[in-house]
Formats: sequence, C-alpha cells, structure tokens
Amino acid sequence: MAERLVVIGGDAAGMSAASQARRLKGPGELAITAFERGHFTSYSACGIPYWVGGTVDGPAALIARTPEEHRARAIDLRMRTEVTELDLERGRVRALDDGGRESWTEFDKLVLATGARPLRPPLPGIEARGVHGVQTLDDGRALIDTLAASPGRRAVVIGAGYIGVEMAEALIHHGYAVTVLDRGEQPMSTLDPDMGARVHEAMCGLGIETVRRAVVTAVLTDDEGRARAVATEDAEYPADVVVLGMGVRPETALAEAAGLPLGPSGGLLTDLSMRVRGRENVWAGGDCVEVLDLISGHTRHLALGTHANKHGQVIGANVAGGYATFPGVVGTAVSKVCDLEIARTGLLEHQARAEGLEFVTVTIESTNHAGYYPGARPMHVKMLAERRTGRLLGVQIVGREGAGKRVDIAAVALTAGMTVEQMTMLDLGYAPPFSPVWDPVLVAARKATAAVRAAGM
Amino acid sequence: MAERLVVIGGDAAGMSAASQARRLKGPGELAITAFERGHFTSYSACGIPYWVGGTVDGPAALIARTPEEHRARAIDLRMRTEVTELDLERGRVRALDDGGRESWTEFDKLVLATGARPLRPPLPGIEARGVHGVQTLDDGRALIDTLAASPGRRAVVIGAGYIGVEMAEALIHHGYAVTVLDRGEQPMSTLDPDMGARVHEAMCGLGIETVRRAVVTAVLTDDEGRARAVATEDAEYPADVVVLGMGVRPETALAEAAGLPLGPSGGLLTDLSMRVRGRENVWAGGDCVEVLDLISGHTRHLALGTHANKHGQVIGANVAGGYATFPGVVGTAVSKVCDLEIARTGLLEHQARAEGLEFVTVTIESTNHAGYYPGARPMHVKMLAERRTGRLLGVQIVGREGAGKRVDIAAVALTAGMTVEQMTMLDLGYAPPFSPVWDPVLVAARKATAAVRAAGM
Repeated sequence: MAERLVVIGGDAAGMSAASQARRLKGPGELAITAFERGHFTSYSACGIPYWVGGTVDGPAALIARTPEEHRARAIDLRMRTEVTELDLERGRVRALDDGGRESWTEFDKLVLATGARPLRPPLPGIEARGVHGVQTLDDGRALIDTLAASPGRRAVVIGAGYIGVEMAEALIHHGYAVTVLDRGEQPMSTLDPDMGARVHEAMCGLGIETVRRAVVTAVLTDDEGRARAVATEDAEYPADVVVLGMGVRPETALAEAAGLPLGPSGGLLTDLSMRVRGRENVWAGGDCVEVLDLISGHTRHLALGTHANKHGQVIGANVAGGYATFPGVVGTAVSKVCDLEIARTGLLEHQARAEGLEFVTVTIESTNHAGYYPGARPMHVKMLAERRTGRLLGVQIVGREGAGKRVDIAAVALTAGMTVEQMTMLDLGYAPPFSPVWDPVLVAARKATAAVRAAGM
Repeated sequence: MAERLVVIGGDAAGMSAASQARRLKGPGELAITAFERGHFTSYSACGIPYWVGGTVDGPAALIARTPEEHRARAIDLRMRTEVTELDLERGRVRALDDGGRESWTEFDKLVLATGARPLRPPLPGIEARGVHGVQTLDDGRALIDTLAASPGRRAVVIGAGYIGVEMAEALIHHGYAVTVLDRGEQPMSTLDPDMGARVHEAMCGLGIETVRRAVVTAVLTDDEGRARAVATEDAEYPADVVVLGMGVRPETALAEAAGLPLGPSGGLLTDLSMRVRGRENVWAGGDCVEVLDLISGHTRHLALGTHANKHGQVIGANVAGGYATFPGVVGTAVSKVCDLEIARTGLLEHQARAEGLEFVTVTIESTNHAGYYPGARPMHVKMLAERRTGRLLGVQIVGREGAGKRVDIAAVALTAGMTVEQMTMLDLGYAPPFSPVWDPVLVAARKATAAVRAAGM
C-alpha cells in the first residue's frame, strides 16, 4: 500500500512540499492529500500590493500553480476545506469542507504549512467591515471588493513595515488619500531609524501622510458597522478603508492544540530537516514556523515567500525519503517605495546589542553606478561589524535603481562569516553602467574596516 | 630626511598608491614623486566607450582626480614625462619630459603602475593613421579627433571582447556603420560560445555586422597613409576608422629591461602584498601585473580598473609601513550591449578543462524579477560545478536590467568556496520588483546540484 502524506495549507510551503515529494515518488508509492481552506493555491502573497495598486492583473497572474494543475499531478487537493483538528496519536486529521461536511483523513506523514495571519490588536472596531489584512489572495480579493464599493477615497494604513508601505503606495496609485499610522520613530522598523528616515522622506514625496509615534486606540464605525475612521491617542483619521500592516503571527492554533512545540514568537520549532522537534513523522514549513537566524543563533519568525518555497523543497525531499536541510536565514529583505529601493540583511543596531555584541557602524553615500554615467543616483549603505574580529554583522541599503539587490553581496558574505576587511577585496562586477569602480558595498566595507581598527582591541 | 617614494604611472593603481601613502604619511616623512607620460591622471579608461558614444561628456567627467588635485596633496607629479630606465642597483629612474629634458630621480621605494597597451598584431598597416587603441584618455581623445575629421561613416572594430563590443555600440551611437571582425566562433570569448551566441544576437539587433572566424591579414591604407579598409583572409571591409579591441598586454618593457620577474602573460609577478617577487623595495599593481586566480591557482593578466584601484590601496598602505594584501581574483566581469547585460565570474568550460577539473554545466532561463511584475525579461544563467564535490566553479549571465550584477552573488560564493548545494539555500533579497521567489542564481544552483548528484561519484 502506498504511504499516505497529508499536507495542511495549499500555498508555497505546502504545495512545494507536495510537488517535490510527487517528483520523487509516484502515486503508487505515495498518496498525497492536501487541504486548503481558501480559493487559491501556490500563489504570491507578496504580489498583492501590486495587484491592489493595479500594476499587476490579479489574481490569476499571482498564481504559480492552480488546483487543477496540482490535481493533474496526482495530488488529492481539497479546496475550501479547513482542517479543524490534528489527532497525532491516531495519525489522522479532521477537516470541514465548505458544504459543512466533516471527515477524518489518515496519514503516515504530515506536513504543516498553515501560514500566518495579520496581527489584529484587540481594539474596538478592529473586526469591522472595511478593515483588511493582506495575507492571502482571498484577503486581496476582499480588499479590492471594498475599494470598488467604497463611498470615499480616504485610506488609513496601520503599520509602516514592508506591507504597510507597499500597500500605502498601492492605494495612492488607486487614487486614495493615504495616511500611515505607525508606532515607531520612523517607518520601516526593519531598518535602523537613521535609514528609516530616508524611507519617510520618500513616502512624503509620494504624498503619503505618515504619522509617527501613533498609538491606535480604536477603529470607529458607522451605523452599519462599517469602518469610518481610525482613532489614535491624539487624533482621529477618517477612513473609507483600513489596511492592517502591523506584521503577521504564525497560524499555529491547530499545532498548539495538538501539543506541538512552539517558539517564543509562536511559530513551530523544527530541526534542520524541517521536521517538527520531537516528532518522527511531522514536518512544518513556511510562515507557520520559526527559522534559525544564523547571526544571532536564535529562532525568529520571518514570514517570507522565498523561505516558504525553500522549506517546501526541503520537506518534499525528506518526506519522500531523500535528504535536504534548511540551514537558516541571515535576515535578508528588499522592498520598494516608488523608485526608492530598500534592503537589509543581518542584524540592526538594537538586535546586535540585544545579542550582547559590541560593534562599529558606518554609513556611506555613493552612487548606484559610475558617477559620470547618466542616471547615477545616490545610494546609502550602512554596515555593522563586530568589534575586534571585524566580522560583518549587518547591512542596510537605501537607494535607487540597482541599489536593493546589492544586499545579496552582504547576504552571501554573512553566510560565509566574512570580515569587513575580507569584503574590501571582493571581486565584484564593475563597469560604468553598473557600479562605481569601488562598489558602494566595498566602500562601506573599507570604512567599516577603518572603524574596527580605530575601535581597537 | 624623508623617505623617497617614486611612482611610475599616473592612473588608478599608481595614484591610488600615492594618495593612500600620503594619507598615512605626511610630506615630512615621505616625499612622493610620480611620473605620467600622458595628459591625464586618475581616470576611468572604462568610461572611454561612453565618451566616444556621446553618453558621457569627456574627458573631464572621467577624471577622478586632476594633476592639480594631486599636487595640492604634496605629490610631486611630473606630467608628460616618461620614465625610460629603471636603475634598481642605484635606486633611481631616468625620465624624459616633453621638452626633451632628461633627468634622474632617486628613490627608496618604487611603485610600478605602467598599465597596459592594446594588442597590435604585427600586420601590414596596423600603425596607420586612423587605427586606434582605446586604453588611455589620450587614446580616447585621438579617436574622437579622428571621428571628427573622418570623411565617411564606416568603422571596423577588430576583436569582439568587452572593449570591442562596447566600442561597436559607441560607434553606432555616433552614426557609424560598424563591422566587428572576430576570430572566435562567437563574440565575447570571455563567455562560453553558447552564451556568446546570445550576445551576437543582441549585436545584430543593434545593426552591428559581426563577422566570426575572421582572420585579419592587413589594414589597407590610402595614398596619405590613412586606413581605408581592413582585409581578412576572406574579404575586405572598408573603414574610415579602425578600432583595436583585441585585448591588452601588460606594459612591462621597463621592468623587463631591469630584470624584474614576469609571468606567462608578460605581467609583473608580485606577492600578496603587491611587492614584486624577490625585491624588498619595489611594488607593482594595476594593468602591468598578473593577479592570482583563486579558482585555478594560477596567475593571469586581467586589466580592470577595479583591480587597479584595490592594488593601489594595498600598495599605498604597505609602502607607508602599514599592512594590507590583495588576495586575488575570481574573474568577475560585467558589461552591457544596448540593454543586454553580460556577466561572468570563475572559470569558463575550456578554462576548467585546462585545469584538469571535471565538472557539470547547467543553463537555466528565468526572469530578472517576478514573472508577473511589469517589465519581467528573460535572463539566462549558466553554472559550472565540480564533479563529486559540487564546488561552484563559474557562472555566466546574459539578461536585461538587473541581470548583470547578480554575478556578485556567485563572486562572493566562489570566494567563500561554496558548493552549489549550499548556494541553493542562500538568503537572497526577494520581492516581486526585484526577483522571482527563487532568484535565477538559486534556480541555476538547484539544477547544478541535481546535475552533480546525477553525475555520481
């Protein structure tokens, strides 16, 4: 009899795992059943802001593989069906379909890929109509429907992280007046405040009103229970639509109820093969797990499609009897506001301090390509290096075209454990349309090397 | 008395060395004399094609630091003055200025940064008027003067390497009909032929006529000794101007006459501190030296401004009593034809074979950013990995906007000695405007990993 694999969650991690397992084992060896509670599979949630903003036609374009395509590869995919209980003892899951029918499905091996949900602080009105998270394509569809039916053109975005900032720009493109309310000193708390200030400038340039140090107290509703404004401790901001951009939490209620181990951020804890700690036959990946941060040595919750896809590959190989591991992350992220490119990898200052690290920081201004080549634009690189050892700890970049993906240089150097002095001699691609003769990352590495020396032993 | 430093060559390596030494030691400790036979110092020779093509105003924009700026930092800079002899025994150099005056200058420490000269095969007519190399700003100026005085608008470029291809495009912009004559199967022999074929297509698209397998036999001249055509074994190509793009040779006649050690490509041989082998007080850097190729373990001649600048920094630190080393190169280069971005790092197939390496190669097609994001364009990545170990050996990339600088990911991975399997899990920057969820370099690494496994032990 074929081994029975059950996958919970039909997006990147779950369906990558299923597909990879199917590639390695045919239906005679492995029967695969996958459950997805929404309408879509294998989609790019990261593309939702571009769909909402009209840059991309959705949702079809955002779907890498449809339910039909998965089924054609002998995956028994149950759409609009939510798993409501894990019975690990007896090796079965209970599921409820959209017709209200309940059923139990048995498994030999289980993959949890239940994803994440947008943070919704327990405030009055937070569940009102017109308040939207943007985590799934179903969320994106709901938001677009609200925008279409919206009586006015005022939007409030709560939170100025990647999603908040990207959604703010999308709503501007949609013709909305947008106010972003954020608790922090500067938007984009994934950067140090000095670098976040550059993002703030760019947001102002787009006409986005950004309110910093804003403590939201309630979503105010009209007589029909629809959001009409967002209240902070200091003011009220009228809103025809409210978008939540305060980040996400791992969706692990099922796992928790089944007694599976969760980390400090509420994500599932796995070993390097993505097997849930302490379980022989349960794997987990994607936005519902915590990942090992290779620089701090701790686990973190980092919901990113690129990690989810890697997890899926690794899990698929392992459940099919192959071998693969996910070594961890260095914390790379890249984003865009208008033509401003924003990237980071490694640790921020406050993160490094929290790990007990002593370090130097430098920031340099250079240009994306040779200063004399048309279209040269300023770019800023901030670099953190450990005191004494000079080991690279983190890089943040804010600039224009060609700036953002330079963070990959630092991501690989971090993975390899390089010092900033070693980095100064990296053989990077140089030609005037691509880079100054000293790439900005090398300029930062030179300055960081000098700072490490100056800081002494 | 101050120590006496003499620098021969006023471009990147020489003047970076002088500047860095001056930064570390004042004029009271170190007297610096520098000789430059041309009209310019510290310039970007890589910018010449863009100057000729009118993309960049020249020559001022291409100059990072003028003679006056160097002199203001207490560097005794002798322009239009050619060093004609090294007397290492007595620690002095003989120089001839443009007024025909000869003088000897004594040194305690010597830096050789004599650069390179374009290859001129000993063919009839190769020294004719209208035949131009493009190695120095003086060369660029001479070419622009020829173009201005040119009776017609037909150009022949001999050689389809980086400079040849960039010059061909520049001449097209200048309104010339351009024919590129190249010995190889495909243009851009810095790539494997299958990748070079993609460059060939792009050149055709620009209207550049490219003749492959062309063996040039002579430059034909008119009655006034001006180039009028280039003859190959098979045909004659009319030319109002001829540009040499066959690469360069290290300019080491002086060094050779003084008995300094040269490598197989005719470049000076140095240790890791850029000190000439066997000499206590002579350093060399830039286009006149051979550099250690970290992948093959051999020295190579690789004339690139980015290496020259690094050499200058290292030499400047060392002559001033500090400490720095240049570890070597992995062979990274990036270039552009129209909007086609071309990059490589590590070894080509024939280079890997010549080192006795067994390897697998894979080529993948992906897109520069998420396929659904506007402006997604195809990009091709070729990857070489060692058999059995899976160690990355080389990467070649041909694509559009954002493709070229991705070679840096591979350059850092090569430096760190990563395997292609390690690369599959690199934490690279992902967002739809920047990359597909699997960066094309990771896609290539996955395919290479599978190929290494399939090749077996």
